[in-house]
Amino acid sequence: MIGGGKNAFIGAVHRIAANIDGQIELVCGALSSNPETAKESGELLFLAADRNYGTYQEMIEKESLLPATARMHFVTIVTPNFAHFAPAMMALEHGFHVVIDKPISLTLAEAKLLRDKILETGLTLALTYTYSGYPMVKQARQMVKDNAFGKIRKILVEYPQGWLSLPSERDGNKQSAWRTDPSKSGISGCMGDIGTHAAQLAEYISGLEITKICADLNIMVDGRALDDDGNVLLKFNNGANGVLVASQIAAGEENALKIKVYGEKGSLEWHQEEPNTLKVKWLDAPTQLYRAGQGYLTSAAQFNARTPAGHPEGYLEAFANIYRNFALTLKSKQEGKTPTPEMLDFPGVEDGVRGMAFIENVVASGLSDQKWFDFKI
Amino acid sequence: MIGGGKNAFIGAVHRIAANIDGQIELVCGALSSNPETAKESGELLFLAADRNYGTYQEMIEKESLLPATARMHFVTIVTPNFAHFAPAMMALEHGFHVVIDKPISLTLAEAKLLRDKILETGLTLALTYTYSGYPMVKQARQMVKDNAFGKIRKILVEYPQGWLSLPSERDGNKQSAWRTDPSKSGISGCMGDIGTHAAQLAEYISGLEITKICADLNIMVDGRALDDDGNVLLKFNNGANGVLVASQIAAGEENALKIKVYGEKGSLEWHQEEPNTLKVKWLDAPTQLYRAGQGYLTSAAQFNARTPAGHPEGYLEAFANIYRNFALTLKSKQEGKTPTPEMLDFPGVEDGVRGMAFIENVVASGLSDQKWFDFKI
Amino acid sequence: MIGGGKNAFIGAVHRIAANIDGQIELVCGALSSNPETAKESGELLFLAADRNYGTYQEMIEKESLLPATARMHFVTIVTPNFAHFAPAMMALEHGFHVVIDKPISLTLAEAKLLRDKILETGLTLALTYTYSGYPMVKQARQMVKDNAFGKIRKILVEYPQGWLSLPSERDGNKQSAWRTDPSKSGISGCMGDIGTHAAQLAEYISGLEITKICADLNIMVDGRALDDDGNVLLKFNNGANGVLVASQIAAGEENALKIKVYGEKGSLEWHQEEPNTLKVKWLDAPTQLYRAGQGYLTSAAQFNARTPAGHPEGYLEAFANIYRNFALTLKSKQEGKTPTPEMLDFPGVEDGVRGMAFIENVVASGLSDQKWFDFKI
Amino acid sequence: MIGGGKNAFIGAVHRIAANIDGQIELVCGALSSNPETAKESGELLFLAADRNYGTYQEMIEKESLLPATARMHFVTIVTPNFAHFAPAMMALEHGFHVVIDKPISLTLAEAKLLRDKILETGLTLALTYTYSGYPMVKQARQMVKDNAFGKIRKILVEYPQGWLSLPSERDGNKQSAWRTDPSKSGISGCMGDIGTHAAQLAEYISGLEITKICADLNIMVDGRALDDDGNVLLKFNNGANGVLVASQIAAGEENALKIKVYGEKGSLEWHQEEPNTLKVKWLDAPTQLYRAGQGYLTSAAQFNARTPAGHPEGYLEAFANIYRNFALTLKSKQEGKTPTPEMLDFPGVEDGVRGMAFIENVVASGLSDQKWFDFKI
Repeated sequence: MIGGGKNAFIGAVHRIAANIDGQIELVCGALSSNPETAKESGELLFLAADRNYGTYQEMIEKESLLPATARMHFVTIVTPNFAHFAPAMMALEHGFHVVIDKPISLTLAEAKLLRDKILETGLTLALTYTYSGYPMVKQARQMVKDNAFGKIRKILVEYPQGWLSLPSERDGNKQSAWRTDPSKSGISGCMGDIGTHAAQLAEYISGLEITKICADLNIMVDGRALDDDGNVLLKFNNGANGVLVASQIAAGEENALKIKVYGEKGSLEWHQEEPNTLKVKWLDAPTQLYRAGQGYLTSAAQFNARTPAGHPEGYLEAFANIYRNFALTLKSKQEGKTPTPEMLDFPGVEDGVRGMAFIENVVASGLSDQKWFDFKI
Repeated sequence: MIGGGKNAFIGAVHRIAANIDGQIELVCGALSSNPETAKESGELLFLAADRNYGTYQEMIEKESLLPATARMHFVTIVTPNFAHFAPAMMALEHGFHVVIDKPISLTLAEAKLLRDKILETGLTLALTYTYSGYPMVKQARQMVKDNAFGKIRKILVEYPQGWLSLPSERDGNKQSAWRTDPSKSGISGCMGDIGTHAAQLAEYISGLEITKICADLNIMVDGRALDDDGNVLLKFNNGANGVLVASQIAAGEENALKIKVYGEKGSLEWHQEEPNTLKVKWLDAPTQLYRAGQGYLTSAAQFNARTPAGHPEGYLEAFANIYRNFALTLKSKQEGKTPTPEMLDFPGVEDGVRGMAFIENVVASGLSDQKWFDFKI
Repeated sequence: MIGGGKNAFIGAVHRIAANIDGQIELVCGALSSNPETAKESGELLFLAADRNYGTYQEMIEKESLLPATARMHFVTIVTPNFAHFAPAMMALEHGFHVVIDKPISLTLAEAKLLRDKILETGLTLALTYTYSGYPMVKQARQMVKDNAFGKIRKILVEYPQGWLSLPSERDGNKQSAWRTDPSKSGISGCMGDIGTHAAQLAEYISGLEITKICADLNIMVDGRALDDDGNVLLKFNNGANGVLVASQIAAGEENALKIKVYGEKGSLEWHQEEPNTLKVKWLDAPTQLYRAGQGYLTSAAQFNARTPAGHPEGYLEAFANIYRNFALTLKSKQEGKTPTPEMLDFPGVEDGVRGMAFIENVVASGLSDQKWFDFKI
Repeated sequence: MIGGGKNAFIGAVHRIAANIDGQIELVCGALSSNPETAKESGELLFLAADRNYGTYQEMIEKESLLPATARMHFVTIVTPNFAHFAPAMMALEHGFHVVIDKPISLTLAEAKLLRDKILETGLTLALTYTYSGYPMVKQARQMVKDNAFGKIRKILVEYPQGWLSLPSERDGNKQSAWRTDPSKSGISGCMGDIGTHAAQLAEYISGLEITKICADLNIMVDGRALDDDGNVLLKFNNGANGVLVASQIAAGEENALKIKVYGEKGSLEWHQEEPNTLKVKWLDAPTQLYRAGQGYLTSAAQFNARTPAGHPEGYLEAFANIYRNFALTLKSKQEGKTPTPEMLDFPGVEDGVRGMAFIENVVASGLSDQKWFDFKI
């Protein structure tokens, strides 16, 4: 693991997610850009002293010298955005598979380089677009794919959070500090941090691609350098329209990602904060509540649940599904088998490239006076 | 009553709404543009034969000849949009107050003429923007006005319906036929029918005015002449941003008007389909559920409820609040008193003008390549 | 109308309910046991001076002397429980149909006398067990009748209110004063006031009858003479079991009547505070949300709704359904026709007798050391 | 781990729960009563061959011979109820701490013997009454303890499941087979399996003890030997009353444990299927929604959450809280420290004894004609 030391938020989430299914073990780390903090953090996590590294360069080099059976199998990168690319590229060049916290990189150009490297090496990259790991999101995707709703006409996705309503970055909040700092976060704040999740979710469920956007990005808290709020009109490649709203100044909201996908015959609705229910609405029949863990779900939904219906799973389990599917894919390849479609169902480098393209397009559209802006990669 | 004969939808709603509080009695009518249908409809409603008129012209003329104590006190117009202006103007010219089903007219120009006439005559006009009649909407408005949430930063309002998902206007559905016909409905379908409700609600609750828009209007069912769907980016006069979504092809939705208003310190959320709860969210305190009928509500909310908490009131009661407040205003004026602010709290001709301006601006913006379009009146 | 003067709660509700559908007009009244208050109240309601009576005896006598077309068609009795029987009996004896607010009388014996009189005269009596007037309750009843759920096995009904959590009857609250006074309310407080609603609802939806009970009645606020809380185990005539909970000291609850009915193949759930949704659960299929106003509902549910789906109706409309169906029944009989089953679908004297039997049995069981107590009429 | 081999349900849950926080490692097992199945199951879980035991006796004996630093630190017992006592007692006698899936044993007598042994040895026993592990349950308990609601007057707890609606035990369903078999499950089915959870939750949150019961236990599916459904009236040691409903034939329900606790000043409501929200209702103020992960929660609630608000945690995390707190307690003791109250907050042997007492009392009450039955231990 690279990054994720003391006081980091997402590093701990990655570790829990990797632990849950007993398939993955944390064997080494370079847990902070500060070597001392890195070592202290490693001790707290029971890392063996000789694999508790001060820098990621050291880690990748030394681990690659270990025998195949003794070295780490893959690297997880949980640093702020600006520090994704270099370790990821180095890991791939040394033959390690990679998990990266989203977004994949600081720029679209970096993302494309990573894609090239993946194509060249045949290694596997997983990107933690967490929300696509929920069972009911997989149910939604499958129902759309099975044409349950007919042609999709409209997608509404919103991701309101309230935690940046106040300028907490000036009060020493580390999480808000790096997210509002262009040098660490990139050219977008809110859209990069959570807008990308919303866009990925919309494309993942619908199987469609965004082709045009019209973005209104806003800085609602004075003094910020990056957007903390935004609204985007969307057009998809099948003619559907949509709206994407992301905000981190939506006071009182926690992590209220919601999506509605409307087809000709019916529609679906999913809320991340109540993730075990998928609401399915029909033109002339009662609304249905599909529930995680039930036997009537598609195989993709069942494959990604651990408990029977009524025993709620949550964010950590969704996160764990990405790790587990990634691990099953590696194991399957290692054993010379072809991974099943269920195993391969985790976000990868293509999602990473589209995510960075989303950020760059949405920022460009936000600055433009032109109404419709072509989504370019 | 003008319009609202057999098979009409909104006419019956108006009659129930007017009945509820026992303040208003239906005394005469010209209930259809077809004189025969008009008379048949009047009989079903127990109208006296000599006040069951064949045309609105006849009704207004004859009623105005009756002694003041015997004639109707006001006229309600519940015809399709194209047939609002002429009877409304004639009624005003004959000294009758008017209730009109929204939108006020077919064009902004007509709306302005009605406004001029109201200013000239001092008569009272009520417009049935129903949703502003709900007690919890009034609670929301008052809390914003009292600065409970600080400066408003963002407003998300959506009004999805699914009933025009299929081209039912080709199968003899009278409701969808006139709403999709430009000659009866005006230059907009969905935005005129329900987008105006959403815009009025956003302005009513927030006390703000829309100043810029960027509209994406769509015809999602082939062969239609008017928009059946649309998404609009908004800017308000205090710098807040917003999104308005209205759709009549949102398959599976009933009448799912929802609004979220975000301020610096907290936010509110209201759903028309569960109208007795107002969800209020705070930066650092538990979310609160304000409930209609409770003693802790503002006076405006209490004034517009008839039952104790837990005895749900609904759409008809919200509609009735407009009629009742309108009637109390007339009565108060008639008695030479100044109506209280609570009595005057119903949508009027200014809402009508802004509603028509919304329609004309949103259609123009939809046709424009320019991103931001000034909201002009 | 007898009772329902100034400051009364349920009288106003009855008037609104009777008004809604334009089928019923308030023509006379004896609106209080105090003749002065009665007259003042009548003036506020625009009663003609000569039909604004000081006592119910006067009203019934004088109205019965009017010609058939001029006199009132029926009497509504909205006094406290102790004052139901005498005016009801007198009205029936003078040939007037009757509407009574529940419970029908002070004692079971009185209820049986009213039943005898109804059988003797052929007149019609309606009892405002309001909750059976909701469209989705009628949908529930029909689905059970149609065997959608197989044999019913279990019924859970709860009716928690919080408004008697404090001894408000000692602070001049008129509503709580009479309800906690045995001389006005009868031998039970909470069970008589709201437990009877819960029992009626359970029997109405399920079509079953309670045959055995085991009651725990409680006085939770010191100094009260009547139960303000209670829990009752139930057995039904088909072998199903159940629980009925009613409480008026459930602090923080409004009027939270809920019912769940479990059959062999599925179950239903209905909440009075969100009355337009009926939740239907199945053994091996997604839960369904049946919604008022939808075209897929049974005819009984559709007959009792006024608005399309998504336009919420509430308590007053449910109340109005009882009045409207009662009025349609009277009208139909008056015209020499047989009322349809939909018209006859309102609570009547049999519900009144069973309601009083519930009160007497539950109080007796509460006092008994015996576990199971036969429900006797 | 003892039990929990292939096809077992709860064993896998225990393993995930133990994994989540990276504090516990599965080092050995006797995973089935069938030695062959045990070994096969151990291989699938990567157990070292020499610690993959055929029987629990062998495991306990051999592990106790290992040096203190090399042997297992505690034993988890996840067998059916009848096979809890013997391995638990043997483990304690060999000096191992114990985690047992609830209920603690087959009989109350066994439970008391375990209690005696715990008192004698000073070892630690954790019992997985999972639902007390949820953060919002801990919030609820703390608010009651802090007297937020005044004296508690009423507790309603219900635990409906539908999975035994059909006689699936005759169709080879292993889970239902042992739960409906008295030799494996004990003298109660539904009450033992889930009624005990409900009782423990009521006592845990309220801090009260059940003192009297009146039970109606039912066998609703013909041919069963044990109750599959039941309703119990309750009295608590402070005079509060209550109802406990548990059913496994509530067709269409998943795992719908709900509790409502009413005090003099307000009340709380918690639903296991939406566990991250605690609804708090007040006499004269808006209902509040307390949400897991928020900074305004009590320390006990915060201590048991891993993610920020809006990132839902669920059943597995609640389960993990029991393991983590148990592990922190052991570690703290091992280091010679006094565990904090937060660490000690997991169900133990006293909960086990009360749980078995609940089963024996409720069955005896169910068979009795006496109304109120003293809860005896």
